[in-house]
Amino acid sequence: MSGSIFGNNIKVSTFGESHGVALGCTVDGIPAGLSLSKEDIQAFLDRRKPGFNPLSTPRKEDDEVEILSGIFEGKTTGTPIALIVRNTSQESGDYSEIASYYRPGHADFTFDSKYGFRDYRGGGRSSGRETIGRVAAGAIASKILKSLGVSVEAYTARIGPVKADLSKYNRENVLALPTAMPDKEANDLALDYVAEMRAEYDSVGGVMECRITNLPAGIGEPVFDKLDAKLAGAVMSIGAVKAVEIGDGVMVSERLGSENNDAFEIKEGKISKKTNHSGGILGGISDGSVITVRAHVKPTPSIFKEQHTVNKSGEEIDIKIKGRHDPIIVPRAVVVMESMCALTVLDLMICNMSSTMEGMQNFYKS
Amino acid sequence: MSGSIFGNNIKVSTFGESHGVALGCTVDGIPAGLSLSKEDIQAFLDRRKPGFNPLSTPRKEDDEVEILSGIFEGKTTGTPIALIVRNTSQESGDYSEIASYYRPGHADFTFDSKYGFRDYRGGGRSSGRETIGRVAAGAIASKILKSLGVSVEAYTARIGPVKADLSKYNRENVLALPTAMPDKEANDLALDYVAEMRAEYDSVGGVMECRITNLPAGIGEPVFDKLDAKLAGAVMSIGAVKAVEIGDGVMVSERLGSENNDAFEIKEGKISKKTNHSGGILGGISDGSVITVRAHVKPTPSIFKEQHTVNKSGEEIDIKIKGRHDPIIVPRAVVVMESMCALTVLDLMICNMSSTMEGMQNFYKS
Amino acid sequence: MSGSIFGNNIKVSTFGESHGVALGCTVDGIPAGLSLSKEDIQAFLDRRKPGFNPLSTPRKEDDEVEILSGIFEGKTTGTPIALIVRNTSQESGDYSEIASYYRPGHADFTFDSKYGFRDYRGGGRSSGRETIGRVAAGAIASKILKSLGVSVEAYTARIGPVKADLSKYNRENVLALPTAMPDKEANDLALDYVAEMRAEYDSVGGVMECRITNLPAGIGEPVFDKLDAKLAGAVMSIGAVKAVEIGDGVMVSERLGSENNDAFEIKEGKISKKTNHSGGILGGISDGSVITVRAHVKPTPSIFKEQHTVNKSGEEIDIKIKGRHDPIIVPRAVVVMESMCALTVLDLMICNMSSTMEGMQNFYKS
Amino acid sequence: MSGSIFGNNIKVSTFGESHGVALGCTVDGIPAGLSLSKEDIQAFLDRRKPGFNPLSTPRKEDDEVEILSGIFEGKTTGTPIALIVRNTSQESGDYSEIASYYRPGHADFTFDSKYGFRDYRGGGRSSGRETIGRVAAGAIASKILKSLGVSVEAYTARIGPVKADLSKYNRENVLALPTAMPDKEANDLALDYVAEMRAEYDSVGGVMECRITNLPAGIGEPVFDKLDAKLAGAVMSIGAVKAVEIGDGVMVSERLGSENNDAFEIKEGKISKKTNHSGGILGGISDGSVITVRAHVKPTPSIFKEQHTVNKSGEEIDIKIKGRHDPIIVPRAVVVMESMCALTVLDLMICNMSSTMEGMQNFYKS
Repeated sequence: MSGSIFGNNIKVSTFGESHGVALGCTVDGIPAGLSLSKEDIQAFLDRRKPGFNPLSTPRKEDDEVEILSGIFEGKTTGTPIALIVRNTSQESGDYSEIASYYRPGHADFTFDSKYGFRDYRGGGRSSGRETIGRVAAGAIASKILKSLGVSVEAYTARIGPVKADLSKYNRENVLALPTAMPDKEANDLALDYVAEMRAEYDSVGGVMECRITNLPAGIGEPVFDKLDAKLAGAVMSIGAVKAVEIGDGVMVSERLGSENNDAFEIKEGKISKKTNHSGGILGGISDGSVITVRAHVKPTPSIFKEQHTVNKSGEEIDIKIKGRHDPIIVPRAVVVMESMCALTVLDLMICNMSSTMEGMQNFYKS
Repeated sequence: MSGSIFGNNIKVSTFGESHGVALGCTVDGIPAGLSLSKEDIQAFLDRRKPGFNPLSTPRKEDDEVEILSGIFEGKTTGTPIALIVRNTSQESGDYSEIASYYRPGHADFTFDSKYGFRDYRGGGRSSGRETIGRVAAGAIASKILKSLGVSVEAYTARIGPVKADLSKYNRENVLALPTAMPDKEANDLALDYVAEMRAEYDSVGGVMECRITNLPAGIGEPVFDKLDAKLAGAVMSIGAVKAVEIGDGVMVSERLGSENNDAFEIKEGKISKKTNHSGGILGGISDGSVITVRAHVKPTPSIFKEQHTVNKSGEEIDIKIKGRHDPIIVPRAVVVMESMCALTVLDLMICNMSSTMEGMQNFYKS
Repeated sequence: MSGSIFGNNIKVSTFGESHGVALGCTVDGIPAGLSLSKEDIQAFLDRRKPGFNPLSTPRKEDDEVEILSGIFEGKTTGTPIALIVRNTSQESGDYSEIASYYRPGHADFTFDSKYGFRDYRGGGRSSGRETIGRVAAGAIASKILKSLGVSVEAYTARIGPVKADLSKYNRENVLALPTAMPDKEANDLALDYVAEMRAEYDSVGGVMECRITNLPAGIGEPVFDKLDAKLAGAVMSIGAVKAVEIGDGVMVSERLGSENNDAFEIKEGKISKKTNHSGGILGGISDGSVITVRAHVKPTPSIFKEQHTVNKSGEEIDIKIKGRHDPIIVPRAVVVMESMCALTVLDLMICNMSSTMEGMQNFYKS
Repeated sequence: MSGSIFGNNIKVSTFGESHGVALGCTVDGIPAGLSLSKEDIQAFLDRRKPGFNPLSTPRKEDDEVEILSGIFEGKTTGTPIALIVRNTSQESGDYSEIASYYRPGHADFTFDSKYGFRDYRGGGRSSGRETIGRVAAGAIASKILKSLGVSVEAYTARIGPVKADLSKYNRENVLALPTAMPDKEANDLALDYVAEMRAEYDSVGGVMECRITNLPAGIGEPVFDKLDAKLAGAVMSIGAVKAVEIGDGVMVSERLGSENNDAFEIKEGKISKKTNHSGGILGGISDGSVITVRAHVKPTPSIFKEQHTVNKSGEEIDIKIKGRHDPIIVPRAVVVMESMCALTVLDLMICNMSSTMEGMQNFYKS
């Protein structure tokens, strides 16, 4: 059964392994007439590219994208856009040992259980490099959303104990700082913290958040295809994410109704809310406020400390993982979260175009 | 666009409004040969039935299910099973006022934004009664899973500040106590707490959890259809859920890798894990341990306290909601969570049947 | 695996057996704001209702529809519309014998092969009564298409050797005559022919056609979701259909390119075609001409003549089928074809709404 | 909306234009453990490769496939298999003129109507080169089917008036002869006929057929996902196909029930049929006999004769198409039909694995 395709109206079909020939995706359903260049996609890929950041694995990959189809004279044609990134720096030699045992916190054991064997080189399909396809597609979705006035911005909200101060939110920081934090001060503290843990051969977890602004009210379908349900599924599908919150998230379970309800008001002539505990979603449908999503990311499972595990012969052993690994997943995952949120929102905006007879009649009148 | 259908292999198509003629679902894809009676389904529906519990709305509904198709001589035939529950206690009179304004925390405003108008009687499709279709389908999925040796059990883990002591876990309590807590003592404290808040015209949030035991390793598809991604989407689609956690959930973001990794070991001759921070899922695929899912539920938005809002004429007003409402959503939502988790797991177990050539060859050899 | 759900944007989930409690469907994705009454749907169902026509089984069923959800104050709300029709005239006694053997031309053997047993009463799910769900949904799709200016009309083109003269096309005839032919003279000849064959305990095949007029150019998606591909799949899914043709259909394989190409011209200021061999579809996309689809329907497999077959004990036997059967399937299947074509076209019209950036930008500008 | 993805369990996502960088597909859902090499896929692609056959366009393309993912140590891993074929012989200069007008019988006008503009180079996405992705995927599906004992073989049954004599069926001929006919004599006559028509600047239509043998009884899902419905949709999606027949196809509409029913019998201890008018499908489900599918293909619309049409300025003009074109589509489309049938059957064989509780219990017992 297929598990590598995302979306209903915009369908992203991804492929590729850490040490295979190439990774990428085909994006089907993109409307015709969008100006789209290689640079648009490369800019997103560069945000997750390894080897150029103190928090990233030293594996250097240019991750240069090639567009194979779907663009004509600089514009999308409405047909599938295929995008590939070739692997250039695979060091298969590094990974021969891990073929023999199951790394704690990794998918080695579960892939073997499911498929009978696995491509053990760098985690194969379960590697973080899998997200190249997501991010390449997300770049396109983001560009469409921007042209519709909708903005999707993810950032690092916390690294270990170091929280970003969101009152100092600065988008330039998110794009420029190695932590992808919006706050320079927190970035510096976080870098120190990670360096310290790394020196102890350990790794660090963190939190990333995404804000979707200027989304019209009415996006999301009732019952199963709610905006929050789709966002949760999309974000939880990112490797290492173990919890997803919408709006005030886990805090709501300790609240009273009178504390948690957001009162409606009229602001600048429009219906608005005095607070936004709900994270911009009511009954699974956007209410016109900012959508807020939060994801908790576990520490990188590949650590250099000694760990206990089992090998393929069924013996318990102690191992020390070698190779090239990020000490924290969050900073490079931020653009993945942004991509998944953008794809989700765009898909549901298309769903919404047939919500009313009036909308359909207007569309086909012209 | 359709949003009321769930699943890929088992497809549950739900319908119905709070004050319409009937609610229910059609379940397509159920294997032939399962013994299935009205009682199997009624037992699940009775766990969410209103009016029989101090924590529930006084609206009394028998919620008696009628099976319309798909069963022959007591067994499923492999064709769609249609199930309906008629509404019997709608009091449309109660709801005339709320047609005129937007209740805080409800989907009134977002439905109007999306569709241009709404069925305002009791929340229409956004009512909790929508879950009747989910639970009726969940009863079938649970029965199949049981016959495959897999058990899915949800319960109330916390109500406001009152936590259940899981070391006292008792399934009978979950099914018998009005809180659906597994622990009698916590149940009693929680009842007092809710009564107190209700006396103040307020409502209460809480936490529900689900444990899936004896699921074989290997369930879940890579990348987008991961077991955790599908569970998160399914559980977040339940109205009022604002956060979903897998395993240790939000706690992982503050951990080090050495704390969070689960070491593998050999136990009773099988590969197992010393701890289960991961909640039984690695790389989106079940690892043979217990799957644990947690959902944070907001307090019921319908409260009797005065609230500020906006009416359809665009005026700010103060309102007091009348009618019949649960002071807390969690206890009746527990069986909804259990149903959504059962449907998700069953769907992915079917997906997994074509994971290997060997499996297909064995199937078609016989 | 589910096989009873049709469509991508409008999803029709059907259920029910010939001798079960009820048949029907849930239609999810219908835009809000369509005026819809029970009568709209009943009018379609009456066209396939048995027992009121010399060409139909004497089994009398009122086939009265009940709307369970999705309508509020006479309009669709955007949420699922559930429709049921109860069986009232099942005579289970008639069918006890056929439980023991496999009727030639029926699905008895294949259902047993697939599921291990079958609901043998009246064919169970493989009965023509299954189409009640299709037709109820088709009534809604047709009403939407009409409001968008698109008309879908099916009719009987041939019964055995008797061809309708399409130059005498009269929609009233299609709706009023027992053959559903558009031509009264052919109707009368066909009635005689069928009566003659029936007297010989035999049954008759025929051809039905559907014309879709005023469909805008541009409907249909490239490659797999072409308008003709989707129509072919939809129409071939109707029991007893063994061939589907688009435009000139089977005749094209004997033509030269210069004979088969339709020259473009300018007519009334618009781009048009001098001929319409292509049946209104080029490259899988509507070209603005009339869409024409033709289906060849086999003779009713239930005949009263002696037939040779095999029973469940594996013995060869000779049988005479009893019970109530139509001597020809076509007249009552015409509205089924019309329904399937309407659902297909509507689904693809919704698909098409996100074909261009300009369309999306216009939609979300307002 | 996406239209370039095929299948439910095995999902084939195709991409590419005639004169773009590359064409190909990603195949998701292939079971792990299949031996698969580049040669397996190349062998299929070579059957549709242009330039090596008197009936084909002189455009020479090696159509060499590159495997980007999903294979490890010669075996499929269960993860997506991405396959690309680079274009090498695009002559964009040839196509500048056709940008200005609408070729009769082509998708030029409909693409412009849908998307506002088109990639006019060689037909863009509507080119026959689009089928590269289908054939690459079909090679994989065929190999899996073979390992399950199922064989899928397509061939040319007729070219213009020249019919193959199927009593002389020879698979070697199909693979070796330029017509893909199973009968050498007919091949020679057909070559002469095509040469003659080509000399008159014209093109020729024909018929292709596919036989699926040794498919177990029970494949196909009731109602909408019937085996014949899925085959019809899949085959009609091939460009230039205008009619699809199952079994005796269009002939059934002139038959009596007593002529058309296939009597069951016992043969070699198994339930079998004396005749196979039904083409191996009853009630949409395979009955264990040979499945037969027939497709009528229109003559190549690109002809060198003068034709009347309209240009983008809305003027009527006379044109003579230049460039490189096959005088008949059928011979190279045969492997496309074979691929689509193989993909359809495999998809439904996977569907069928969850048809019974017994099957699921056996699967999960081991």
